[in-house]
Parts: sequence; structure tokens; C-alpha cells
Amino acid sequence: MIVEDLPRHACIELLARTRLGRLACAQNQQPYVTPFFFAYRLEALYSFSRLGQKIAWMRSNPLVCVEVDEIETPHSWSSVIVSGHYEELPPTPEGEPERKLAYSLLQERPVWWEPGYAKTASREGPLELVYFRVHATHISGRTARP
Amino acid sequence: MIVEDLPRHACIELLARTRLGRLACAQNQQPYVTPFFFAYRLEALYSFSRLGQKIAWMRSNPLVCVEVDEIETPHSWSSVIVSGHYEELPPTPEGEPERKLAYSLLQERPVWWEPGYAKTASREGPLELVYFRVHATHISGRTARP
Repeated sequence: MIVEDLPRHACIELLARTRLGRLACAQNQQPYVTPFFFAYRLEALYSFSRLGQKIAWMRSNPLVCVEVDEIETPHSWSSVIVSGHYEELPPTPEGEPERKLAYSLLQERPVWWEPGYAKTASREGPLELVYFRVHATHISGRTARP
Repeated sequence: MIVEDLPRHACIELLARTRLGRLACAQNQQPYVTPFFFAYRLEALYSFSRLGQKIAWMRSNPLVCVEVDEIETPHSWSSVIVSGHYEELPPTPEGEPERKLAYSLLQERPVWWEPGYAKTASREGPLELVYFRVHATHISGRTARP
């Protein structure tokens, strides 16, 4: 197996065609990582989440890291790592354009969890969805082939 | 879709049957997350890695978080999150029993990257593999069904 750095354009292409990643945040030296769905555009990853630990931590410390991979076989895989910072897209008049952009990007392909969120809301009462984006400050990747 | 907490025994079962997870560490409030392969035993996740950023950061700050999931369909998935701390298994006489345990656990099912590591070593010269385990201090999970 040969492991090499993934060229930047290939990192971008992988981010653009992938929807599922893992998002890590940290508080007081304790990291926290969860799966999340996103849409990539112009060095930013757009997403949304229920209000919970992840959002609380990213509001407190906006430094985040995203990992996205494609594992075809044990010896043929690619992994991209994005370091960046969290930016919330609030439901305010000023934030509305970016929020609409996020929504339209996420609508381009089916968003896995959104119908689930909506139904969960109807079972458990009102549900606050937080829209946000991760601004990429550093993108790198590695790829392996047999 | 109904989202529920995953009972502890189900979290443990998922960890025991899975090999691929994502490991997050942090340094100076900046998180970092990478895919990794592991074997679970008695509230610990055993693994190995090449010497690099991940190992350097975990040596500096042993607080880590591991995420492991099984996504069958968009509305049928489980995700387990383990908070814990990093412990290195050094190649010393004192560390040898735990290191051997790690090796035997990882050998029980094919370890995806180890042959790759070995071949990479032969191409690029000596390769230092660091064996370690993550002691789980908190395990939680969520599961979704339609």
C-alpha cells in the first residue's frame, strides 16, 4: 500500500461529493466528536444541528476539525481533514441570506436527518435547529492505494 | 424517525463488533480528528498508529473522544461516543504484557492497515509504530429507527 498526500483539488472534490463527516470540537482540553451531515461550498461546510452539547461547545470555542473519508477497500481509501472555525447562521434579518444559502445547499441532495428532526419535533414538542457553517482555514488529505 | 438513548450494554456490543472509529484529540482548544482502527476490551480501545500529529497531541494532552457508528439507512443508525484518556503501551519490559494483549486483540480480525504500514516501512525506511489504548471514562450512545 502506498500512502500519499492528496492534492488540494482532490480534497475539495471529495468534500464536494460527500455528505457525511465527523465534526470535532473541544472544551477545556476535552475533545468531542459526532457524525454530521454537511454541504460544501467555497471553503465552507454548511450544516445544521439540534441545540445540544456540540452547539454549546462550538459557541464557547469556535475552533473545530472535520474529518471526511471514502474507504473503498482496506488498502484503497482517502481521508480529508479540515481545520476551521464555527460560525452560526442565526435567524435574524442580517443572517437570513446565509441561512437561505445553507438551506438551499442542503436541499440539493436529500438531507438524511432533517425529516427525522421534524418528526422528532412533533413527538417531543418544539425543536430548535441551529444552522451553521465551518470556515475552512486549513485543508489536507491523504490517499492510499495498493 | 425515533431517536433514543442506546442502553449501555448495546453501546458495549457495538464497540465490540466494530473496528473503524474516529479518534479526536485536542491541543490549545484546537481539536483534531482522524479515522482509526481499534479493538475493544474491558472499557478500553486498543490501537496503534504511526508517530505523527495525533500521537504527539495525545502525549501532550491525554483527553480524547472516540466516535463509532453503524449507519444502515438514513433513518436507522446508531452512534456511540466514548470519552476517555490516552495511555501509551511502550516497548519496555514493564509494558510488554499490555502491548502483547493489544497485538493479540488486533490480530483477532484482520487489521486493515498493518500490512500497509509494513510495506510503507520497507519503501520509506524504518517505521515507528506506537501502540496505545483509550481508557473509557464515559460511554454513551444514541440510536434511531423509522
